[in-house]
Amino acid sequence: MRDVTKDNITDVFMGYMSPDMDPRLREVLSSLVRHLHDFAREVNLTHDEWNTGIAFLEAAGEISDKERHEFVLLSDVLGLSSLVDMLHSHPEGTSSSVLGPFHITGSPPLPLGGDLRKDFDDTVLLVQGTIRDPDGTPIPGATLDIWQTAPNGLYSSQDPDQDTYSFHGIQTVGTDGRYRFTSVRPVEYTVPSDGPVGDILRACGRHPWRPSHLHFIVEAEGFKPLVTEVFAADDPYLDQDTVFGVRKDLVMSYQEMPAGSFPEAGFELSGQVDEPYLKVEFDLTLVRQA
Amino acid sequence: MRDVTKDNITDVFMGYMSPDMDPRLREVLSSLVRHLHDFAREVNLTHDEWNTGIAFLEAAGEISDKERHEFVLLSDVLGLSSLVDMLHSHPEGTSSSVLGPFHITGSPPLPLGGDLRKDFDDTVLLVQGTIRDPDGTPIPGATLDIWQTAPNGLYSSQDPDQDTYSFHGIQTVGTDGRYRFTSVRPVEYTVPSDGPVGDILRACGRHPWRPSHLHFIVEAEGFKPLVTEVFAADDPYLDQDTVFGVRKDLVMSYQEMPAGSFPEAGFELSGQVDEPYLKVEFDLTLVRQA
Repeated sequence: MRDVTKDNITDVFMGYMSPDMDPRLREVLSSLVRHLHDFAREVNLTHDEWNTGIAFLEAAGEISDKERHEFVLLSDVLGLSSLVDMLHSHPEGTSSSVLGPFHITGSPPLPLGGDLRKDFDDTVLLVQGTIRDPDGTPIPGATLDIWQTAPNGLYSSQDPDQDTYSFHGIQTVGTDGRYRFTSVRPVEYTVPSDGPVGDILRACGRHPWRPSHLHFIVEAEGFKPLVTEVFAADDPYLDQDTVFGVRKDLVMSYQEMPAGSFPEAGFELSGQVDEPYLKVEFDLTLVRQA
Repeated sequence: MRDVTKDNITDVFMGYMSPDMDPRLREVLSSLVRHLHDFAREVNLTHDEWNTGIAFLEAAGEISDKERHEFVLLSDVLGLSSLVDMLHSHPEGTSSSVLGPFHITGSPPLPLGGDLRKDFDDTVLLVQGTIRDPDGTPIPGATLDIWQTAPNGLYSSQDPDQDTYSFHGIQTVGTDGRYRFTSVRPVEYTVPSDGPVGDILRACGRHPWRPSHLHFIVEAEGFKPLVTEVFAADDPYLDQDTVFGVRKDLVMSYQEMPAGSFPEAGFELSGQVDEPYLKVEFDLTLVRQA
């Protein structure tokens, strides 16, 4: 095309793509570029603003490494990560929510009723529930990969004072589909805001906080794996999670249980907890693999 | 918002922005994020595709440095750079076109009629024209910053065998607004395709070629600077410039001039060119600063 204009350039781009290319890539790129061009036309993007955008991407590339994933963070704070999660959440199953950058593989087994609190001296949190299929039938043998922040707001991978698998464990449920463990209440924390994505948050007058949550990956043979989070109904950041992870069915109350009511059996801490404790009941529904 | 859904997440994002933030940044980000979310919803973007996109951005960041600007190249091959140029081209002036990554500052003065060909033994190309305002009045004292490829297809900054300012020069026009110089015909070349942007081109069945062109930056007091290019009407890549730089008013014919017709005066090469040569006439119109 020897007469590219601001009105036909999107069509010219489409015309450059080979008829033999992968059809799904064509579909994705066509939509992406049409929206990119429409955006530039809509705001009449200036050269200075284009330069700012390029400098932002270069700075995000520069701060990124094996540990720091600034482009993931960008996707998170723009809501794209959560949107992709929600597009592929099944309405019959528990909502999925962001995996986040702190999951590590190879967590040790956590027996039924096991304790993640270890030496951290904080109010005991009892978490339990049933893993079911959409008909309500328990799924025997399902596994729950659990991870959370320590009371200092840090994941083990961020904190040289914690063991690698501190507040990490994988539990396998029995024939009743029930899981149960003890821990401490996770705390709210900030996403990394010392890079270019932090600059965007500040420029928008946004904070970098996430409400406190427990992370779960639930897997069972024949079912779609579920990556999700459990939030506390009284968390101050529940209505403004900076990565848009909160879903209505993932908000649970942390019930305050009176002294002396801790279960007498079935938990590693049974017989050791006299004081008041917190309890969360959270049932999970997996949908079948297509 | 404790009930983020795939349908309300765009509004939730908007609600996170402070009323006190810069209004233009709000306008640009609102449009960008609305289009980003619409794109994801439209193609039902999968987790795997999202991962591919993140890996692409990380790879582009990794290959980038002071010399290599992969994000600029991405913008170029997606047509965004050209679109921004066209959005800010003035209809009364000569079209602008992409600056590209090969411009260097500090080029030496090129006298009127001066020669850029130097030791390169190739057919002489005579380039001349008038720099005018939108009323057709010549602009005395306008400057023309000129750069182009050598006959081997390389810019001096890419080619250790060329001097720094080989095929670079800055000419100042007199009271008649006329510029004139000699050179050789520039040649078509490829954009860098050994990185992630090259992978996109290949996946789309696209080539990395740009049609041959002369680059000009034209400046004059009281006028908007013009970054532009001059293309040859017979170039094989004219209809498929991989960075979308061709505009109708920038396509000129390279006239074949007979032996013995080279101007007898006014050029550094006058009296030295007996063989046939090529001639391009290209007038330029600048628009006034707002």
